[in-house]
Amino acid sequence: MAEEIYTGLGQLGSDAKAAETPEEATLERVPNPHPDMLYCARFVAPEFTSICPVTGQPDFAHIVIDYAPNEHLVESKSLKLFLQSFRNHGAFHEDCTIYIAKRLMELLEPRYFRIAGYWYPRGGIPIDVFWQSGPVPEGLWVPETGVAPYRGRG
Amino acid sequence: MAEEIYTGLGQLGSDAKAAETPEEATLERVPNPHPDMLYCARFVAPEFTSICPVTGQPDFAHIVIDYAPNEHLVESKSLKLFLQSFRNHGAFHEDCTIYIAKRLMELLEPRYFRIAGYWYPRGGIPIDVFWQSGPVPEGLWVPETGVAPYRGRG
Amino acid sequence: MAEEIYTGLGQLGSDAKAAETPEEATLERVPNPHPDMLYCARFVAPEFTSICPVTGQPDFAHIVIDYAPNEHLVESKSLKLFLQSFRNHGAFHEDCTIYIAKRLMELLEPRYFRIAGYWYPRGGIPIDVFWQSGPVPEGLWVPETGVAPYRGRG
Amino acid sequence: MAEEIYTGLGQLGSDAKAAETPEEATLERVPNPHPDMLYCARFVAPEFTSICPVTGQPDFAHIVIDYAPNEHLVESKSLKLFLQSFRNHGAFHEDCTIYIAKRLMELLEPRYFRIAGYWYPRGGIPIDVFWQSGPVPEGLWVPETGVAPYRGRG
Amino acid sequence: MAEEIYTGLGQLGSDAKAAETPEEATLERVPNPHPDMLYCARFVAPEFTSICPVTGQPDFAHIVIDYAPNEHLVESKSLKLFLQSFRNHGAFHEDCTIYIAKRLMELLEPRYFRIAGYWYPRGGIPIDVFWQSGPVPEGLWVPETGVAPYRGRG
Amino acid sequence: MAEEIYTGLGQLGSDAKAAETPEEATLERVPNPHPDMLYCARFVAPEFTSICPVTGQPDFAHIVIDYAPNEHLVESKSLKLFLQSFRNHGAFHEDCTIYIAKRLMELLEPRYFRIAGYWYPRGGIPIDVFWQSGPVPEGLWVPETGVAPYRGRG
Amino acid sequence: MAEEIYTGLGQLGSDAKAAETPEEATLERVPNPHPDMLYCARFVAPEFTSICPVTGQPDFAHIVIDYAPNEHLVESKSLKLFLQSFRNHGAFHEDCTIYIAKRLMELLEPRYFRIAGYWYPRGGIPIDVFWQSGPVPEGLWVPETGVAPYRGRG
Amino acid sequence: MAEEIYTGLGQLGSDAKAAETPEEATLERVPNPHPDMLYCARFVAPEFTSICPVTGQPDFAHIVIDYAPNEHLVESKSLKLFLQSFRNHGAFHEDCTIYIAKRLMELLEPRYFRIAGYWYPRGGIPIDVFWQSGPVPEGLWVPETGVAPYRGRG
Amino acid sequence: MAEEIYTGLGQLGSDAKAAETPEEATLERVPNPHPDMLYCARFVAPEFTSICPVTGQPDFAHIVIDYAPNEHLVESKSLKLFLQSFRNHGAFHEDCTIYIAKRLMELLEPRYFRIAGYWYPRGGIPIDVFWQSGPVPEGLWVPETGVAPYRGRG
Amino acid sequence: MAEEIYTGLGQLGSDAKAAETPEEATLERVPNPHPDMLYCARFVAPEFTSICPVTGQPDFAHIVIDYAPNEHLVESKSLKLFLQSFRNHGAFHEDCTIYIAKRLMELLEPRYFRIAGYWYPRGGIPIDVFWQSGPVPEGLWVPETGVAPYRGRG
Ligand SMILES: [Ca+2]
Ligand SMILES: [Ca+2]
Ligand SMILES: [Ca+2]
Ligand SMILES: [Ca+2]
Ligand SMILES: [Ca+2]
Ligand SMILES: [Ca+2]
Ligand SMILES: [Ca+2]
Ligand SMILES: [Ca+2]
Ligand SMILES: [Ca+2]
Ligand SMILES: [Ca+2]
Ligand SMILES: [Ca+2]
Ligand SMILES: [Ca+2]
Ligand SMILES: [Ca+2]
Ligand SMILES: [Ca+2]
Ligand SMILES: [Ca+2]
Ligand SMILES: [Ca+2]
Repeated sequence: MAEEIYTGLGQLGSDAKAAETPEEATLERVPNPHPDMLYCARFVAPEFTSICPVTGQPDFAHIVIDYAPNEHLVESKSLKLFLQSFRNHGAFHEDCTIYIAKRLMELLEPRYFRIAGYWYPRGGIPIDVFWQSGPVPEGLWVPETGVAPYRGRG
Repeated sequence: MAEEIYTGLGQLGSDAKAAETPEEATLERVPNPHPDMLYCARFVAPEFTSICPVTGQPDFAHIVIDYAPNEHLVESKSLKLFLQSFRNHGAFHEDCTIYIAKRLMELLEPRYFRIAGYWYPRGGIPIDVFWQSGPVPEGLWVPETGVAPYRGRG
Repeated sequence: MAEEIYTGLGQLGSDAKAAETPEEATLERVPNPHPDMLYCARFVAPEFTSICPVTGQPDFAHIVIDYAPNEHLVESKSLKLFLQSFRNHGAFHEDCTIYIAKRLMELLEPRYFRIAGYWYPRGGIPIDVFWQSGPVPEGLWVPETGVAPYRGRG
Repeated sequence: MAEEIYTGLGQLGSDAKAAETPEEATLERVPNPHPDMLYCARFVAPEFTSICPVTGQPDFAHIVIDYAPNEHLVESKSLKLFLQSFRNHGAFHEDCTIYIAKRLMELLEPRYFRIAGYWYPRGGIPIDVFWQSGPVPEGLWVPETGVAPYRGRG
Repeated sequence: MAEEIYTGLGQLGSDAKAAETPEEATLERVPNPHPDMLYCARFVAPEFTSICPVTGQPDFAHIVIDYAPNEHLVESKSLKLFLQSFRNHGAFHEDCTIYIAKRLMELLEPRYFRIAGYWYPRGGIPIDVFWQSGPVPEGLWVPETGVAPYRGRG
Repeated sequence: MAEEIYTGLGQLGSDAKAAETPEEATLERVPNPHPDMLYCARFVAPEFTSICPVTGQPDFAHIVIDYAPNEHLVESKSLKLFLQSFRNHGAFHEDCTIYIAKRLMELLEPRYFRIAGYWYPRGGIPIDVFWQSGPVPEGLWVPETGVAPYRGRG
Repeated sequence: MAEEIYTGLGQLGSDAKAAETPEEATLERVPNPHPDMLYCARFVAPEFTSICPVTGQPDFAHIVIDYAPNEHLVESKSLKLFLQSFRNHGAFHEDCTIYIAKRLMELLEPRYFRIAGYWYPRGGIPIDVFWQSGPVPEGLWVPETGVAPYRGRG
Repeated sequence: MAEEIYTGLGQLGSDAKAAETPEEATLERVPNPHPDMLYCARFVAPEFTSICPVTGQPDFAHIVIDYAPNEHLVESKSLKLFLQSFRNHGAFHEDCTIYIAKRLMELLEPRYFRIAGYWYPRGGIPIDVFWQSGPVPEGLWVPETGVAPYRGRG
Repeated sequence: MAEEIYTGLGQLGSDAKAAETPEEATLERVPNPHPDMLYCARFVAPEFTSICPVTGQPDFAHIVIDYAPNEHLVESKSLKLFLQSFRNHGAFHEDCTIYIAKRLMELLEPRYFRIAGYWYPRGGIPIDVFWQSGPVPEGLWVPETGVAPYRGRG
Repeated sequence: MAEEIYTGLGQLGSDAKAAETPEEATLERVPNPHPDMLYCARFVAPEFTSICPVTGQPDFAHIVIDYAPNEHLVESKSLKLFLQSFRNHGAFHEDCTIYIAKRLMELLEPRYFRIAGYWYPRGGIPIDVFWQSGPVPEGLWVPETGVAPYRGRG
C-alpha cells in the first residue's frame, strides 16, 4: 500500500487557514495510488456556507462531490480550506456549486466528476443544483447520494 | 352505539363554504356520545394556511389538536371550515395558534385541550407554538404528536 | 408452561365466520396463565374497517389495544372476528373505538386497558381516538404505541 | 463568478405581491451564468395551494421542479409569486401541474424539464402527477425526488 | 386551463354508492385536458379490501396505480367506487390486482399503465403483485412507488 | 375472475405439517389465471430458519422471492411448508438460498425468477445472497426489494 | 477491571448445544463485577422461535430483556442456548415470554427486570407482551426499547 | 387577534445587517399578545456557525430554543441577526450555547426557557449542550426536540 | 464569553498519542465556564473498540455520555485519547462501560452523570449497558439518546 | 445441498487470530457449490478499523463487499480475520479500500466484484470509496447497498 504520496504539500499537517476568497484558495493534489483502477471517491461537506451577493445574508448548503480519479487525488485538507474560503464571499447558489466543480475539474482532470449542492430554503423554497462532467463511464460505480429531500413540516 | 347525535347542524351534509374570516366562522358541536369516558380525540390538519399581516405573504402550518371531550364534540366539518377561514386573513403565528385554541375552548369547555402549530420556516427558522389548557388530567391518555422536527438539509 | 387453557371455546380451530354486527359478535376468554404477574398484552389490528352511518362510505382504522390481564385473556380468534363484525356496520369513529373498549372491559375486567384508533383521513383531516381505563397501575409497563403521525404529503 | 445577472428585474428586491391568477402572473428570467454546463436546478415548493373548481374547497400540493437551464434561469422570486397566484384560483390537479410546466417551458426553453405534483388526498386517495419534457439528455444528472409515498395510517 | 371536462358524468357530485361487485361497477372517463403531453398520473389507494374466496376472510391491500393518459382520464370518484365494489366480493390476490388493471386498460387505452398491489400478510407471508402494460415509453417519467417492504417485527 | 384454480391440492385447507427436510417437502402449483399477462408476484418470508451444518446452531434469514408466472403459480401454503422444512435441517447460507431457487424454478418454469436471502449476522458480518434467472424480461416490472441494509449499532 | 469472573462455567467456550426443552436448559450466572452500581444490561434477541402448541406451526418473536444486576450477571452463552431451547417446544406467546422472565428472575434475583416479546403476526394481528418486576427503581436508567410498531403494509 | 404589536422596532422590515459580535447585537422584543396563556414557542436554527477560538476553524450547530413567554416575545428577525453575529466570532461550544440562553433570559424573563445545541462532530465526537431555566412549569407543554442522534456511518 | 480556560493542558494542541491502557491514560479537565448553570453536555463516541479478554477478538461499541458539569468540564481531546486507549486492551462489555463512568466520575465529580454503551452483536445478540449516577437532578434537562435499537434483518 | 466444501481450511473452527498486517493475513477459499449459477454474495462489515499513517489516529469504516462467485467462495472466517488485520496497520482510506478489493480479486477471480468503503468523518467531511471490477454482467442481480448518507446534525 502507498505511503509516500503526501509529501511536498503546503497545507496538510500545518496550521493553514482558509483563504479569504475562493479565487485565492489553493487546491492541492497528490498522485493517485491506484491509477489502474476506475473508482469513485465521494466527499460530503455538510458545513458549507457563503454570502448572498444581493442581500448580504448567509447561505448554507450540504454539498456532495463524487469523482473518479485519473492521475491525481484532491488533497482533502486543501479541499476543506477551499470550501471554507466561501464563508465570507458573495456568490449565487448555482454559481457557487458550479464554480467548485470547475476548480476541481481543472485541478484533477478526472475521468468523471459530479457535484450536488443541496441549499437550505429561502422564501420557503430550497434549490438543489446537480452537475456531472458527462455520462457515468462504463464500469464506474457511483451510487445515489441518498440525501433526503426537503419536506417542509409535518 | 350512537346514531342520532348529528341532527340540527348547519354545515354537515350541506354545501357550506368557509367564512371569510375566523371571527365570522361558525364552529358547531354535537353531544358527546360517551360523556362517562375520559378520552382524547386528536385532529391533524396538515393543510393550514393564513396570511402574514406584515408582508401579505402566505404562511403555512401543520396543526395538531388534542382534546378530552366534556359534554360536546366539535363537529368536524365545521372545524374544517373554521380552519379554512384563515386562508385570506392576516394573523401572526402565535396569534393564529392561540386563537384557534380559544375558540375551541369556548365552544367545548373540554376537560383538557392542547394545540401544536408547526409553522413552515421563514428566514431559515421555523416556529412551533404549543399550548395546553393545564396539566393532563389524571388517567387521560394523550400520546406525543410524533411530528418530525425541522431538519434543514442533509 | 400452560397447555390446557384453550379448551371449551366456540370459535378457535373451527370455521367460525364473523358476526354481522358487533352486538351479535361473541368475544371469548380463557384463563390467564400468569394471574400472579402484572403484565401487558398488546394487539395491533391494522385491518379495521367499518361504515360511516351518514354517508355509507367505508371507513378504515389502525387499532392498537393494550391491556393488563386479570383473571382472563381475550381469545385472539374471537377478537379478530369481533373486529371483523364492524365491516358492514355503520358507526362513528369515536363510537367504534369506545365501543370496542367497553366490550373488552366487560369481558375481561382487566387491571388496565387502553385503546388507540388511528383513523384514515376524511376531508384531509384524520382523527385519532385514545382512551384508557385509568392511570397506568404502578409497576405495569405499557410502552408507547409508536404509531407514525399523519403527515399529509412531502 | 457572476454578479451582474439580476439587473432589470421587476419583482426581486421590491414589495411585489402575487398576481390574482396564474395567467396574470409574470415569470421573469435571468441569463444562465454557466450556459456551457449541462446541469440541473431543482426547486421544491411544499407550500402550493389552489382551489378545486368543482367544490370550491382548497387543494394542497408538494411540488418538485427540475430543469436543465439553456440560456436562462428562472428568477426565483417571480417563481414563488407565480406559484402563489394559484391560491384563490380554481384548477384541477392535472391541469395545475401541467400548466406550471407549460409556463416554465415557454419562459425558459430549457434543455430538459420535469415536474412532480404530489397532491394531498381527497376521498382517501391522493393523486400524483409527473411530467417531463422528454428523455433525460445524455450526461445530465437528475436524481430521484425521494418524496415519501402516501401511506395512510399505521 | 380546462374547466369543462367533468360534464355528463353519472357519479361525480351525486350520492352514488359502490356497486355490489366489480363487474357491476361503472368506471367513467373524462377527456384528457393535455393529450399533447406524455405524463403520468398516480393514484394511491391504501384502503382496499376484498374477500378471500376460499376462507371467506377479508383481505387488505395497499394499491398503487400509475398510468400515462391517452385520450381520457379516469374520473376519480368512479375509480373510488370501483375499488369499493370489491369489499364484499371474493377474489384471489393476483386476480384482483390484474382485474383492476384490465378494467382500466379497457376504459382508458392508456399509453402506459402499471399497478402494484401490496397485500397484507397471511400465514406470515405477504404477497405483492406488480404488472405493467409494457416497457415504460421513452420520455415518460414514472418514479418508483417507494412503498416500504414488509419487515415482520423488530 | 378465476374461482376454480385451487382444486386438487394436497395441502391447502388441510392440516398439513411441514416435511422434515426440504427434499421431502412437496411444492404444489396451480394454473396461472392470467397467462396472457407478464406480471410479477413477490413473496416475503421474514421467518426463515435453518441449521448450520458445521456448528449445529440455528441460522435465520429474511427471504424475498420475485417471479413472473408462466403457466403456473406456486400454491402459497405449500411454499410456506416448504420453507418451514428447513427448520431442523443443516445447510449453508448460499446453499439454502440457491436450493430454494432451484426447486421453484423446477416447479414453475417461470418467465423470470429471483431470490434474495438476507441472513442475520454471524461473527459481526451478515451475508446476503442474490440470484436471478437472467436479465429482467423486457416489460416486466420488478421493483427493488427495499430491504434495509445491516447497520450494526448507532 | 475484572478478568476472573468467567471461571467454572459449563457452556462458555465449549461446544454446548441447546437443550431440547426450556425446562431442561441450564442458565448460568457469574458474579456482578460492579455490585456497587445500579445499572441496566439489555439483551436483544431477534432470533427467537418456538412452536404453537395448538397448530404445531412455528412462531417467531423479537425479544428485548432489560435487567439491573444484583449479585450476578447472566452468562450470555447460556442465555443464548436457553432461548434456543424453545425452538421445537410448544408454548403460547404470553406463556413463553413470561416463562423466560420467571427463569431469569429465579436465577438472578435482580434489582429490576423487564421483558418485551414482539411476536410476528398471526391472522393479521401481532401480539406484544410486556412485563416488568415492578416500578423502575429510583435512579436506574432504563431507556425505551425503541422497537418499531407493526404497521401492516403501505 | 393582535395586529399592533410590531411597532417601534429597529430591525424588522429594514435592511438591518448582523452585528459583528454577539455582544454588539441587539435583541428586540414585542408584547406577548396572550400573556394570560402559559404556552411554548420553539425556534429551530439549523444554520448556526461560529469560530473555534483555539484553532480558528468554523464550527457548526443545529440549535433548538423553547420558551414560555411572560410579558414579551422575542422579535424573530432580531433573533436571526443575533444568531448570525456569531459567524466570525470565536467561542467554545458550551459557551456559545449558554451565552445565547443568558441573553434571551435577560431580554425576556420568560416563565421557562431551554436551549439545545447540537454541534457537528470534531475528531469524530460531536458534543450536544442542553440547558433549561428550571423544571418545566406545571401545565406547560414542551415536547421533545426529536433531533436525530449522531450515528457515524452505516 | 470565556476564552482562557484551556491553558495548562498536556494534550490539547499537541501531538499526544493514546495511552496503551485505560489505566495509563490521563483524563484532563478545565474549569466550567458556567458553574452557575445546571446544564448537560453530551458526547457521542461511535468509534469505540476494545478486545474481548476471553477470545482476543475485537469488540465495538457506540457510546453516549451525558453529564452535568460541576466545577469542571472534561477536556475533549483527553477524552478522545482515553477512549482510544481501550483499543488493544481486553475488557468485558459491562466492565468497559462502567469503568469509563468511574474514571469520569472521579475526574469531574459532576452533578449528574450517565453512560450508555451500545455494543455490536456477538452470537446474534447485542448487549447494551446503561448507568447513571442517580436520579436526574430537578431542573436538569437530559434528553433521550435516541439511538436506534438493534433490529437484525428485514 | 453441499456439505463437504469446508474441508482442508486452516482457520475455520480453530482459534486462529488475525495477522498483524494485511499482507501477512491469509485469505482462504472454498469451492463454489453452485458454479452454474450467476449469483451475488454480499458481506457487510460494520466493524472495520485501521490507523492513519500520517497522524497515527484510528480510522473507522463501514465496508460492503459484493461479488459474483466463479469457481470459489471466500471462506468467511478468513475474511473476518483479514479485515481485522488492518487494526493496527497504517493505510489511507482509498488505499485500504482498494487493497481489500485487490486481495479478493486475486483470491477469487470472480465474475464480478465491488466494494464500498464508508469512512467516518475527519475534519467534518467523510469520504466514501466505491470500486467495481467492471460493468455488472448481464443477468447478475446486485442491489444497491442502501447505506444511509452522512448527514451531519439536525
Ligand atoms: Ca436508486
Ligand atoms: Ca415518547
Ligand atoms: Ca417515549
Ligand atoms: Ca407537508
Ligand atoms: Ca433510486
Ligand atoms: Ca430508485
Ligand atoms: Ca426481523
Ligand atoms: Ca431504485
Ligand atoms: Ca420516551
Ligand atoms: Ca396501512
Ligand atoms: Ca417522548
Ligand atoms: Ca455504525
Ligand atoms: Ca421521551
Ligand atoms: Ca421518546
Ligand atoms: Ca434505488
Ligand atoms: Ca444539517
